[in-house]
Amino acid sequence: MLETLLYPKSVAVIGASKSPGKVGYETFNNLVKGGYAGRLIPVNPTADEILGVKCYPDLTGIGEPLDLSVIAVPTASVKAAVESSIKAGAKSIIVITAGFKEVGPDGAALEKEIARICAAQNVRLMGPNCLGLINTHHRLNASFARKMPPVGGISVISQSGALCTAILDWAAARRIGLAKLISIGNKADLDESDFLKALSKDKETRVIMGYLENILTGDEFIKVAEEAASVKPVVLMKVGVTKAGGKAASSHTGSLAGADIAYGAAFKRAGVIRAETFEALFDYCTAFAMQPLPKGDRVAIITNAGGPGIMAADAVEKSGMKVTTLGVETAEHLSCKLPSAASIANPIDVLGDADPERYALALNAALDDDTVDAIIVILTPQAMTKAAETARALAGCVRGNKPVLVTFMGGEDVMPGREELATAGLPDYPSPERAVAALRAMYDYVLWRKRPPRIVTRFTVNRRRVERIITHHYRAGRLQIGEEKAKDVLAAYGFSVPAGQLAATSDEALEIADRIGYPVAMKIASPGIIHKSDFGGVRLGLSNAEAVLDAYDLMMSRIKRRAPEVELDGVYIEKMATRGREVIIGMTRDPAFGPMLMFGLGGIFVEVMKDVTFYLAPITADEAMKMLVSTRSYALLKGARGQRPVDMNSIADGLQRISQLATDFPQIAELDINPFIVGEVGVEPVVADARITLVQETKP
Amino acid sequence: MLETLLYPKSVAVIGASKSPGKVGYETFNNLVKGGYAGRLIPVNPTADEILGVKCYPDLTGIGEPLDLSVIAVPTASVKAAVESSIKAGAKSIIVITAGFKEVGPDGAALEKEIARICAAQNVRLMGPNCLGLINTHHRLNASFARKMPPVGGISVISQSGALCTAILDWAAARRIGLAKLISIGNKADLDESDFLKALSKDKETRVIMGYLENILTGDEFIKVAEEAASVKPVVLMKVGVTKAGGKAASSHTGSLAGADIAYGAAFKRAGVIRAETFEALFDYCTAFAMQPLPKGDRVAIITNAGGPGIMAADAVEKSGMKVTTLGVETAEHLSCKLPSAASIANPIDVLGDADPERYALALNAALDDDTVDAIIVILTPQAMTKAAETARALAGCVRGNKPVLVTFMGGEDVMPGREELATAGLPDYPSPERAVAALRAMYDYVLWRKRPPRIVTRFTVNRRRVERIITHHYRAGRLQIGEEKAKDVLAAYGFSVPAGQLAATSDEALEIADRIGYPVAMKIASPGIIHKSDFGGVRLGLSNAEAVLDAYDLMMSRIKRRAPEVELDGVYIEKMATRGREVIIGMTRDPAFGPMLMFGLGGIFVEVMKDVTFYLAPITADEAMKMLVSTRSYALLKGARGQRPVDMNSIADGLQRISQLATDFPQIAELDINPFIVGEVGVEPVVADARITLVQETKP
Repeated sequence: MLETLLYPKSVAVIGASKSPGKVGYETFNNLVKGGYAGRLIPVNPTADEILGVKCYPDLTGIGEPLDLSVIAVPTASVKAAVESSIKAGAKSIIVITAGFKEVGPDGAALEKEIARICAAQNVRLMGPNCLGLINTHHRLNASFARKMPPVGGISVISQSGALCTAILDWAAARRIGLAKLISIGNKADLDESDFLKALSKDKETRVIMGYLENILTGDEFIKVAEEAASVKPVVLMKVGVTKAGGKAASSHTGSLAGADIAYGAAFKRAGVIRAETFEALFDYCTAFAMQPLPKGDRVAIITNAGGPGIMAADAVEKSGMKVTTLGVETAEHLSCKLPSAASIANPIDVLGDADPERYALALNAALDDDTVDAIIVILTPQAMTKAAETARALAGCVRGNKPVLVTFMGGEDVMPGREELATAGLPDYPSPERAVAALRAMYDYVLWRKRPPRIVTRFTVNRRRVERIITHHYRAGRLQIGEEKAKDVLAAYGFSVPAGQLAATSDEALEIADRIGYPVAMKIASPGIIHKSDFGGVRLGLSNAEAVLDAYDLMMSRIKRRAPEVELDGVYIEKMATRGREVIIGMTRDPAFGPMLMFGLGGIFVEVMKDVTFYLAPITADEAMKMLVSTRSYALLKGARGQRPVDMNSIADGLQRISQLATDFPQIAELDINPFIVGEVGVEPVVADARITLVQETKP
Repeated sequence: MLETLLYPKSVAVIGASKSPGKVGYETFNNLVKGGYAGRLIPVNPTADEILGVKCYPDLTGIGEPLDLSVIAVPTASVKAAVESSIKAGAKSIIVITAGFKEVGPDGAALEKEIARICAAQNVRLMGPNCLGLINTHHRLNASFARKMPPVGGISVISQSGALCTAILDWAAARRIGLAKLISIGNKADLDESDFLKALSKDKETRVIMGYLENILTGDEFIKVAEEAASVKPVVLMKVGVTKAGGKAASSHTGSLAGADIAYGAAFKRAGVIRAETFEALFDYCTAFAMQPLPKGDRVAIITNAGGPGIMAADAVEKSGMKVTTLGVETAEHLSCKLPSAASIANPIDVLGDADPERYALALNAALDDDTVDAIIVILTPQAMTKAAETARALAGCVRGNKPVLVTFMGGEDVMPGREELATAGLPDYPSPERAVAALRAMYDYVLWRKRPPRIVTRFTVNRRRVERIITHHYRAGRLQIGEEKAKDVLAAYGFSVPAGQLAATSDEALEIADRIGYPVAMKIASPGIIHKSDFGGVRLGLSNAEAVLDAYDLMMSRIKRRAPEVELDGVYIEKMATRGREVIIGMTRDPAFGPMLMFGLGGIFVEVMKDVTFYLAPITADEAMKMLVSTRSYALLKGARGQRPVDMNSIADGLQRISQLATDFPQIAELDINPFIVGEVGVEPVVADARITLVQETKP
């Protein structure tokens, strides 16, 4: 996987320079200083040697084949440098130079051309407009970053070069080791998915940390991210919470969804741990890199001060984990060994005068206790506190069987202790809350790892019927599929819809109503009217012939008055749906991640409370059920306030069928079943109203 | 205010010692080293001098009157030391010694005795079991803390001595100055309220920071905290999120409330800014201490890297503030002066190679722009970045008219810059998100400062009637006031209740129903039955005589079969309430903060969605309206989904009447009006059901 890029045997730097401050100097200097053991080839027509290394005027005379070419020449010369690199046999190219897509259309065209040249020769391209690449284990620093990070288990993929420098600076200050640092720049060829794949197989990488501003190839991302997350933790920060208001959606589902929700759904599916803040990104990665995963959510807290112990306990409870009750043996052991004033409940208070031995005693007891899955150790700088010695004592206890996260609170007095912790591989947090948040991220990952296998049910459906309806709509230039035909589509995918038929005259309406039986609903059918009730185009619960005739005439005369220009197909006469709980099932298509399903309780719960959940299609039965459970109003489905529970499986089944429909037909942009009326177990749910919108261009 | 404690002219240390490591040595040493300018009197019968200061065997021969006595003798000797201090004229006493209330009943008794002795002589007591007191401006370090903080504007009140040491250590590391550090210990006499009052008048204190584990005198706390917050920001962290499950509540309101909700309501009332985490406590206080308050919520962001700029913009939007659109002049000015690749929109991207001048240019432009209320400046360590120089340049621009919060991201490379920022009084945060959170805390405080004056409406009510009902219930040994009498209580406070009367026979039931008019509701009336419907004791919508007779007989026979032991008062016949929106108004009494009002939409919104708000009584009309607005389901009251809006004022009026009732009658422990049926403007709301619980003991 990207062998010649990440682990090259030879590296050329085109544009290597003798002038400190220039990117071509800094990059080459980093390679030399970093102690890279392979062959280094500086290329510069005006120099004989740079930093003591023989310099070449171009790549023609270098002799051996080349693995990696790093390009740091002015924008205008990049294309030529790429071509000469390929001619010299380079298998990978990094273009550090900026001035491409990010500056406008000309730059974008040039970038595309360079990517095309590389692709034609099977050469992989990283950048342009990036900081470069670091592989600490390979002693390769092919970047113009100011410093080489210490060797460690965290590999970084960053879409911002500037952030890379902040990460490197942070890693140096906290003495956190990195494996790879990859600045992906404009992603002309290689993007986050390529590197996720490579790093998932990189044996030096224990955790993948990523900073992303966008993901363009959603399907590929989900696939490789899930594969990577199955092997090692992937922690990503995605910035740019765009407002949902941007696009005009024609469905509830569309208007409630947004890019950020799609990213959330994609990360959830792929098992990616999402860091909501810059500090959380580091906090989580440090825990994953340094400590084993917890087996469960029962947390023990050890502290030399009451207050911070309560802070930690509060944070554990708020996070949904448990402040464990210590085993009887542990309590007895602690009560024998600790001073009588110590608290031997959880939090274990080892008291303000605790020495390193007392901390070690408490930590060992917690490590031995089967009721403890993870341990938070807190130290405050009291008069007697020996921070460095305590850090060493704690490190001496750790056995790799349970995660131990440490909080040394304060500043200067605890700093020597913090340094010992970093050296010993114990993650250290400035506050109890941040230690607990990192632990919760670990536990979330454990839960995802334990997920059931994803088996997507395939239902037997009438796909041809749907094809015909869609084709017919495209031919007629209609992107909106109205209620009647939308129900036909859904019926073809196994949904139950009320009996009904289109009437073109009042006599026909009467005949249909008599045939399907009263009470009936009547709804105006017109391609130009989406919100039927706004035009007085819906009448419900009509219980006899007279009511039907009256309604027909009234509807026609009103519509002709209010919207004289619209084309009318007639009036849809339909059997009234039976009563039940109204829910909404919807679908919208995200530009990057494809079809996304929505579930919510009908009416106010969606419109007012915005109590909905989203999942990417295709979904499994298990995921469909999770969608129901994760709404706040789930209790109502279970039967709050003396009502009988509804048939959850019928909703989950509906979600899976929509999932299949959306997957089968990329032409469908948005879909709402609103309401979907569900009853108790044994009662078939009914589609009371539905609407489908097609995408602008037919994608076969 | 606490003159002799906070600014003493003379300080005795009883138990001053020559042995380093002992509390009596460390405390006296701190006083000497700190450079305290007043008279120092070490008291120790076995020494002639300590650290060069003449030592006294006891306080009898010290000559002048004494301001402050600091006691650091063993627990058993504390009482005698207190007595001798008072005899020597001490006006304030700090007991550092531990071993009192925190170790058990004997210690608690001794603590009480000491507090009694001090109170009898009008001597104020701080502690016991505390770290002591620091006043940096007075050069007074009467504590056994390891270090003296730099002089500054933050004063700390802490219920945890251990946390004080962490705060001191943090302040030293971040070069943040403190004014006072007060470790309140067991609060035998002086508590948080006393010190809030004193610090609100202390001219050296710009911000009050507090860490609390409990508040025992709630009313006093709210009064002094509100007074303090009106003068300067008060930022508190309250730990110990107790589970609501602890107590058995007999009302919805009671079961939804909890100690943490009461603290939240008290802080909201008093204008206290609540810090949810240890880091937030520091972050907020630093911003308040160093920067002016913003005039509005329009934020400008200046950055030398795109990614962190987006992080900041995301955080501003999520916090509910605005990423401002810069003024036209600003944009023009920036586009002239900055390189063409720079972004002159907001965030303003000064580019990776930005020098201090470019930062200063952008900051000055934002400070000049009327569309900007606050500024976040972000720096990442790029190759060209000069962190220290940039910090100085930024500090040179600041004019005190708008808050400027800074984020220098990274570690070692930006550290020199961070130190310059601290020196120059610019608050610095490790991530954009934390800077934004601190700014939001400032803006919340600004909003609170702008609140309308609190004018509590007093309604004309029939207080005597309620007194009689309560007295009658206490005499009968009944703490539950059932529906009928609860409605009488509410009617006496101006609520409209449906016409109704108690019937003891079926004939009487019929007569009442005929008189008040159909349809009627019938409800069993019994002191022993709280949940009437569980016993089949409620029938609604009875529309004729036959239905009433049937219901009466059925109800009586069923109740006698299902609950033969209960005492029956009869059946309550009531006019059916008209239709409308069902809401709940409730009240519960918190042990510390007194009556607390609840509002929520009826039924599922309270029971399932827990969509309720709490406010402390007494409330104003403005606060009552805020209670409605702050529920998620508020949109329903406004008339979502085509319904007409309900009369908000009628609900706000009801809340204020309950507020008055709860304030007038401390005997009322809990109250639910559920449902309170409200209609459109002009329709009088009706109490459809109600329940009141009295407190165990009558408090007149």
